Amino acid sequence: MKFQQQLEQCLTSGGVFLTSGGEGERNVMTMGWGMTGVMWGKPVFLAPVRTTRHTFDLIQKTGCYAVCIPKSDRKKELAVCGSKSGRDTDKFALTGLKALPCRQIDAPAVADCLVIECKVAYQTTLEKSALPADIRERWYQKNDLHTLMIGEIVDEYEL
Amino acid sequence: MKFQQQLEQCLTSGGVFLTSGGEGERNVMTMGWGMTGVMWGKPVFLAPVRTTRHTFDLIQKTGCYAVCIPKSDRKKELAVCGSKSGRDTDKFALTGLKALPCRQIDAPAVADCLVIECKVAYQTTLEKSALPADIRERWYQKNDLHTLMIGEIVDEYEL
Repeated sequence: MKFQQQLEQCLTSGGVFLTSGGEGERNVMTMGWGMTGVMWGKPVFLAPVRTTRHTFDLIQKTGCYAVCIPKSDRKKELAVCGSKSGRDTDKFALTGLKALPCRQIDAPAVADCLVIECKVAYQTTLEKSALPADIRERWYQKNDLHTLMIGEIVDEYEL
Repeated sequence: MKFQQQLEQCLTSGGVFLTSGGEGERNVMTMGWGMTGVMWGKPVFLAPVRTTRHTFDLIQKTGCYAVCIPKSDRKKELAVCGSKSGRDTDKFALTGLKALPCRQIDAPAVADCLVIECKVAYQTTLEKSALPADIRERWYQKNDLHTLMIGEIVDEYEL
Protein backbone atom coordinates (compact mmCIF):
# COMPACT_ATOMS: atom_id res chain seq x y z
CA MET A 1 0.00 0.00 0.00
CA LYS A 2 1.55 3.22 -1.19
CA PHE A 3 -0.58 5.73 0.69
CA GLN A 4 -0.69 4.22 4.20
CA GLN A 5 0.47 7.33 6.01
CA GLN A 6 -1.89 9.73 4.24
CA LEU A 7 -4.75 7.26 4.67
CA GLU A 8 -4.25 6.94 8.41
CA GLN A 9 -3.98 10.71 8.81
CA CYS A 10 -7.25 11.30 6.92
CA LEU A 11 -9.17 8.47 8.59
CA THR A 12 -8.50 10.04 11.97
CA SER A 13 -9.35 13.62 10.85
CA GLY A 14 -12.43 14.06 8.64
CA GLY A 15 -12.29 10.92 6.54
CA VAL A 16 -11.74 9.94 2.93
CA PHE A 17 -14.05 9.61 -0.07
CA LEU A 18 -15.49 6.23 -1.03
CA THR A 19 -16.71 6.20 -4.63
CA SER A 20 -18.87 3.66 -6.43
CA GLY A 21 -21.24 3.12 -9.31
CA GLY A 22 -21.02 2.97 -13.07
CA GLU A 23 -21.93 5.53 -15.70
CA GLY A 24 -25.07 7.49 -14.74
CA GLU A 25 -25.26 6.05 -11.23
CA ARG A 26 -22.06 7.20 -9.60
CA ASN A 27 -21.85 8.15 -5.94
CA VAL A 28 -19.38 9.47 -3.38
CA MET A 29 -19.66 9.10 0.39
CA THR A 30 -17.42 9.96 3.32
CA MET A 31 -15.72 7.10 5.14
CA GLY A 32 -14.06 7.54 8.52
CA TRP A 33 -13.22 3.89 9.17
CA GLY A 34 -11.33 1.26 7.19
CA MET A 35 -8.39 -1.10 7.27
CA THR A 36 -5.53 -2.05 4.98
CA GLY A 37 -3.16 -4.96 4.90
CA VAL A 38 -2.61 -8.35 3.33
CA MET A 39 -5.08 -11.22 2.85
CA TRP A 40 -4.90 -14.27 0.57
CA GLY A 41 -1.41 -13.11 -0.35
CA LYS A 42 -2.75 -9.87 -1.82
CA PRO A 43 -2.85 -6.21 -0.76
CA VAL A 44 -6.35 -5.44 0.46
CA PHE A 45 -8.54 -2.65 1.76
CA LEU A 46 -11.48 -3.33 4.07
CA ALA A 47 -14.31 -0.80 3.66
CA PRO A 48 -17.16 -0.91 6.20
CA VAL A 49 -20.40 0.25 4.53
CA ARG A 50 -23.81 0.29 6.23
CA THR A 51 -26.25 -1.86 4.25
CA THR A 52 -28.74 1.03 4.26
CA ARG A 53 -26.42 3.21 2.18
CA HIS A 54 -26.85 3.99 -1.52
CA THR A 55 -23.14 3.15 -1.88
CA PHE A 56 -23.89 -0.36 -0.61
CA ASP A 57 -26.44 -0.93 -3.40
CA LEU A 58 -24.05 0.39 -6.06
CA ILE A 59 -21.20 -1.85 -4.90
CA GLN A 60 -23.54 -4.86 -5.04
CA LYS A 61 -24.05 -4.07 -8.73
CA THR A 62 -20.45 -3.38 -9.78
CA GLY A 63 -18.39 -5.40 -7.26
CA CYS A 64 -15.87 -2.59 -6.83
CA TYR A 65 -15.12 0.73 -5.17
CA ALA A 66 -12.40 3.34 -4.94
CA VAL A 67 -10.93 4.99 -1.86
CA CYS A 68 -9.95 8.58 -2.63
CA ILE A 69 -7.69 10.38 -0.15
CA PRO A 70 -7.84 14.17 -0.52
CA LYS A 71 -4.48 15.83 -1.26
CA SER A 72 -5.75 19.21 -0.07
CA ASP A 73 -8.29 20.40 2.51
CA ARG A 74 -11.72 18.98 1.63
CA LYS A 75 -13.42 19.33 5.02
CA LYS A 76 -16.46 21.05 3.52
CA GLU A 77 -16.92 18.46 0.77
CA LEU A 78 -16.34 15.60 3.24
CA ALA A 79 -19.01 17.05 5.53
CA VAL A 80 -21.53 17.25 2.66
CA CYS A 81 -20.72 13.74 1.35
CA GLY A 82 -21.09 12.37 4.86
CA SER A 83 -24.54 13.87 5.47
CA LYS A 84 -26.43 13.72 2.14
CA SER A 85 -27.57 10.53 0.44
CA GLY A 86 -26.66 9.83 -3.17
CA ARG A 87 -30.18 8.45 -3.64
CA ASP A 88 -31.58 12.00 -3.72
CA THR A 89 -28.55 14.06 -4.71
CA ASP A 90 -25.68 14.05 -7.21
CA LYS A 91 -23.01 14.83 -4.66
CA PHE A 92 -20.37 15.48 -7.31
CA ALA A 93 -22.55 18.26 -8.74
CA LEU A 94 -23.49 19.54 -5.26
CA THR A 95 -19.92 19.80 -3.98
CA GLY A 96 -18.11 20.58 -7.20
CA LEU A 97 -15.86 17.56 -6.69
CA LYS A 98 -14.62 16.44 -10.12
CA ALA A 99 -15.21 12.81 -11.10
CA LEU A 100 -12.72 11.10 -13.39
CA PRO A 101 -12.92 7.50 -14.63
CA CYS A 102 -11.03 4.88 -12.64
CA ARG A 103 -8.31 2.94 -14.45
CA GLN A 104 -9.18 -0.69 -13.65
CA ILE A 105 -12.67 -0.67 -12.19
CA ASP A 106 -16.18 0.56 -12.88
CA ALA A 107 -16.33 3.55 -10.50
CA PRO A 108 -15.52 7.25 -10.52
CA ALA A 109 -12.35 8.64 -8.93
CA VAL A 110 -12.20 12.05 -7.27
CA ALA A 111 -9.76 14.52 -8.84
CA ASP A 112 -6.94 15.91 -6.66
CA CYS A 113 -6.83 12.69 -4.61
CA LEU A 114 -4.67 9.64 -3.97
CA VAL A 115 -6.74 6.80 -5.42
CA ILE A 116 -6.92 3.16 -4.28
CA GLU A 117 -8.98 1.01 -6.65
CA CYS A 118 -10.51 -2.16 -5.15
CA LYS A 119 -12.40 -5.21 -6.39
CA VAL A 120 -14.53 -6.83 -3.68
CA ALA A 121 -13.23 -10.34 -2.91
CA TYR A 122 -15.40 -11.04 0.13
CA GLN A 123 -18.08 -9.32 2.16
CA THR A 124 -19.78 -10.10 5.44
CA THR A 125 -22.43 -8.15 7.32
CA LEU A 126 -21.85 -7.67 11.06
CA GLU A 127 -24.07 -9.71 13.36
CA LYS A 128 -25.46 -7.42 16.02
CA SER A 129 -25.62 -10.13 18.67
CA ALA A 130 -21.90 -10.87 18.26
CA LEU A 131 -20.85 -7.28 18.96
CA PRO A 132 -19.93 -5.97 22.42
CA ALA A 133 -22.78 -4.08 24.14
CA ASP A 134 -20.98 -0.72 24.10
CA ILE A 135 -20.43 -0.90 20.32
CA ARG A 136 -24.02 -2.05 19.69
CA GLU A 137 -25.42 0.81 21.71
CA ARG A 138 -23.16 3.50 20.37
CA TRP A 139 -23.25 2.68 16.65
CA TYR A 140 -26.15 0.34 15.89
CA GLN A 141 -29.23 1.53 17.77
CA LYS A 142 -31.07 1.73 14.44
CA ASN A 143 -29.82 -1.74 13.39
CA ASP A 144 -28.13 -0.30 10.31
CA LEU A 145 -25.18 -2.67 10.50
CA HIS A 146 -22.00 -2.39 8.47
CA THR A 147 -21.01 -4.83 5.80
CA LEU A 148 -17.25 -5.36 5.82
CA MET A 149 -16.13 -5.30 2.19
CA ILE A 150 -12.67 -6.75 1.69
CA GLY A 151 -11.41 -5.46 -1.63
CA GLU A 152 -8.31 -6.54 -3.47
CA ILE A 153 -6.29 -3.42 -4.30
CA VAL A 154 -5.88 -3.50 -8.08
CA ASP A 155 -4.37 -0.05 -8.64
CA GLU A 156 -2.99 2.90 -6.62
CA TYR A 157 -2.08 6.28 -8.09
CA GLU A 158 -2.20 10.02 -7.67
CA LEU A 159 -4.72 12.21 -9.50
CA MET B 1 -0.85 2.59 14.84
CA LYS B 2 2.78 3.22 15.66
CA PHE B 3 4.40 0.34 13.82
CA GLN B 4 2.61 0.43 10.46
CA GLN B 5 5.73 0.52 8.32
CA GLN B 6 7.53 -2.30 10.13
CA LEU B 7 4.33 -4.37 10.14
CA GLU B 8 3.82 -4.04 6.41
CA GLN B 9 7.44 -4.89 5.72
CA CYS B 10 7.27 -8.06 7.86
CA LEU B 11 3.87 -9.21 6.56
CA THR B 12 5.26 -9.23 3.04
CA SER B 13 8.53 -11.01 3.98
CA GLY B 14 8.32 -13.92 6.44
CA GLY B 15 5.52 -12.73 8.73
CA VAL B 16 5.07 -11.69 12.33
CA PHE B 17 4.39 -13.59 15.55
CA LEU B 18 0.84 -13.94 16.86
CA THR B 19 0.79 -14.84 20.55
CA SER B 20 -2.06 -16.06 22.71
CA GLY B 21 -2.97 -17.97 25.85
CA GLY B 22 -2.73 -17.44 29.54
CA GLU B 23 -0.33 -18.87 32.09
CA GLY B 24 0.60 -22.48 31.28
CA GLU B 25 -1.13 -22.51 27.90
CA ARG B 26 0.71 -19.88 25.92
CA ASN B 27 1.34 -20.23 22.20
CA VAL B 28 3.06 -18.43 19.34
CA MET B 29 2.28 -18.84 15.64
CA THR B 30 3.47 -17.15 12.46
CA MET B 31 1.05 -14.84 10.69
CA GLY B 32 1.62 -13.60 7.15
CA TRP B 33 -1.68 -11.79 6.67
CA GLY B 34 -3.48 -9.11 8.66
CA MET B 35 -4.92 -5.62 8.47
CA THR B 36 -4.81 -2.46 10.53
CA GLY B 37 -6.92 0.66 10.59
CA VAL B 38 -9.87 2.26 12.35
CA MET B 39 -13.25 0.75 13.24
CA TRP B 40 -15.91 1.95 15.70
CA GLY B 41 -13.73 5.01 16.21
CA LYS B 42 -10.89 2.91 17.59
CA PRO B 43 -7.52 1.70 16.28
CA VAL B 44 -7.88 -1.96 15.33
CA PHE B 45 -5.94 -4.95 14.05
CA LEU B 46 -7.62 -7.72 12.08
CA ALA B 47 -5.97 -11.12 12.58
CA PRO B 48 -7.11 -13.98 10.32
CA VAL B 49 -6.76 -17.30 12.20
CA ARG B 50 -7.82 -20.69 10.81
CA THR B 51 -10.39 -22.26 13.15
CA THR B 52 -8.34 -25.47 13.18
CA ARG B 53 -5.41 -23.74 14.88
CA HIS B 54 -4.44 -24.11 18.54
CA THR B 55 -4.17 -20.31 18.62
CA PHE B 56 -7.86 -20.11 17.67
CA ASP B 57 -8.85 -22.18 20.71
CA LEU B 58 -6.67 -20.11 23.04
CA ILE B 59 -8.12 -16.81 21.78
CA GLN B 60 -11.64 -18.18 22.35
CA LYS B 61 -10.68 -18.64 26.00
CA THR B 62 -8.92 -15.33 26.66
CA GLY B 63 -10.49 -12.96 24.11
CA CYS B 64 -7.17 -11.37 23.26
CA TYR B 65 -3.94 -11.72 21.32
CA ALA B 66 -0.69 -9.88 20.67
CA VAL B 67 1.01 -9.17 17.35
CA CYS B 68 4.79 -9.21 17.79
CA ILE B 69 6.91 -7.72 14.99
CA PRO B 70 10.54 -8.93 15.12
CA LYS B 71 13.12 -6.14 15.42
CA SER B 72 15.89 -8.41 14.11
CA ASP B 73 16.07 -11.35 11.71
CA ARG B 74 13.85 -14.17 13.00
CA LYS B 75 13.39 -16.12 9.76
CA LYS B 76 14.32 -19.42 11.42
CA GLU B 77 11.97 -18.92 14.37
CA LEU B 78 9.16 -17.74 12.06
CA ALA B 79 9.59 -20.86 9.93
CA VAL B 80 9.33 -23.13 13.00
CA CYS B 81 6.35 -21.26 14.47
CA GLY B 82 4.59 -21.45 11.10
CA SER B 83 5.00 -25.23 10.72
CA LYS B 84 4.64 -26.77 14.21
CA SER B 85 1.42 -26.82 16.22
CA GLY B 86 1.34 -25.50 19.77
CA ARG B 87 -0.92 -28.43 20.66
CA ASP B 88 2.09 -30.77 20.63
CA THR B 89 4.98 -28.40 21.19
CA ASP B 90 6.02 -25.50 23.40
CA LYS B 91 7.29 -23.34 20.56
CA PHE B 92 8.89 -20.82 22.92
CA ALA B 93 11.06 -23.61 24.34
CA LEU B 94 11.70 -25.12 20.90
CA THR B 95 12.85 -21.86 19.28
CA GLY B 96 14.40 -20.12 22.26
CA LEU B 97 12.08 -17.14 21.77
CA LYS B 98 11.68 -15.41 25.12
CA ALA B 99 8.13 -14.87 26.40
CA LEU B 100 7.40 -11.83 28.56
CA PRO B 101 4.03 -10.91 30.04
CA CYS B 102 1.86 -8.48 28.08
CA ARG B 103 0.94 -5.20 29.77
CA GLN B 104 -2.85 -5.05 29.30
CA ILE B 105 -3.94 -8.50 28.15
CA ASP B 106 -3.68 -12.15 29.09
CA ALA B 107 -1.08 -13.31 26.54
CA PRO B 108 2.69 -13.61 26.23
CA ALA B 109 4.75 -11.08 24.27
CA VAL B 110 7.90 -12.03 22.37
CA ALA B 111 11.07 -10.29 23.53
CA ASP B 112 13.00 -8.16 21.01
CA CYS B 113 9.77 -7.26 19.18
CA LEU B 114 7.40 -4.37 18.56
CA VAL B 115 4.25 -5.44 20.39
CA ILE B 116 0.62 -4.64 19.51
CA GLU B 117 -1.81 -5.83 22.22
CA CYS B 118 -5.39 -6.49 21.08
CA LYS B 119 -8.72 -7.34 22.69
CA VAL B 120 -11.12 -9.09 20.30
CA ALA B 121 -14.18 -6.90 19.65
CA TYR B 122 -15.73 -8.98 16.88
CA GLN B 123 -15.02 -12.17 15.00
CA THR B 124 -16.55 -13.80 11.94
CA THR B 125 -15.61 -17.02 10.18
CA LEU B 126 -15.32 -16.87 6.39
CA GLU B 127 -18.11 -18.55 4.44
CA LYS B 128 -16.56 -20.72 1.76
CA SER B 129 -19.45 -20.28 -0.67
CA ALA B 130 -19.08 -16.49 -0.55
CA LEU B 131 -15.41 -16.57 -1.58
CA PRO B 132 -14.21 -16.30 -5.20
CA ALA B 133 -13.38 -19.67 -6.77
CA ASP B 134 -9.64 -18.92 -7.13
CA ILE B 135 -9.30 -18.08 -3.42
CA ARG B 136 -11.36 -21.14 -2.38
CA GLU B 137 -9.21 -23.44 -4.46
CA ARG B 138 -5.88 -21.96 -3.51
CA TRP B 139 -6.35 -21.54 0.23
CA TYR B 140 -9.32 -23.60 1.44
CA GLN B 141 -9.22 -27.01 -0.23
CA LYS B 142 -9.24 -28.59 3.24
CA ASN B 143 -12.12 -26.34 4.39
CA ASP B 144 -9.98 -24.92 7.19
CA LEU B 145 -11.43 -21.45 6.91
CA HIS B 146 -10.09 -18.34 8.61
CA THR B 147 -11.90 -16.50 11.34
CA LEU B 148 -11.34 -12.77 11.01
CA MET B 149 -10.64 -11.46 14.49
CA ILE B 150 -11.01 -7.71 14.79
CA GLY B 151 -9.13 -6.65 17.89
CA GLU B 152 -9.11 -3.24 19.49
CA ILE B 153 -5.50 -2.15 19.92
CA VAL B 154 -5.11 -1.47 23.65
CA ASP B 155 -1.34 -0.98 23.82
CA GLU B 156 1.67 -0.65 21.52
CA TYR B 157 5.30 -0.65 22.65
CA GLU B 158 8.81 -1.87 21.99
CA LEU B 159 10.37 -4.77 23.88
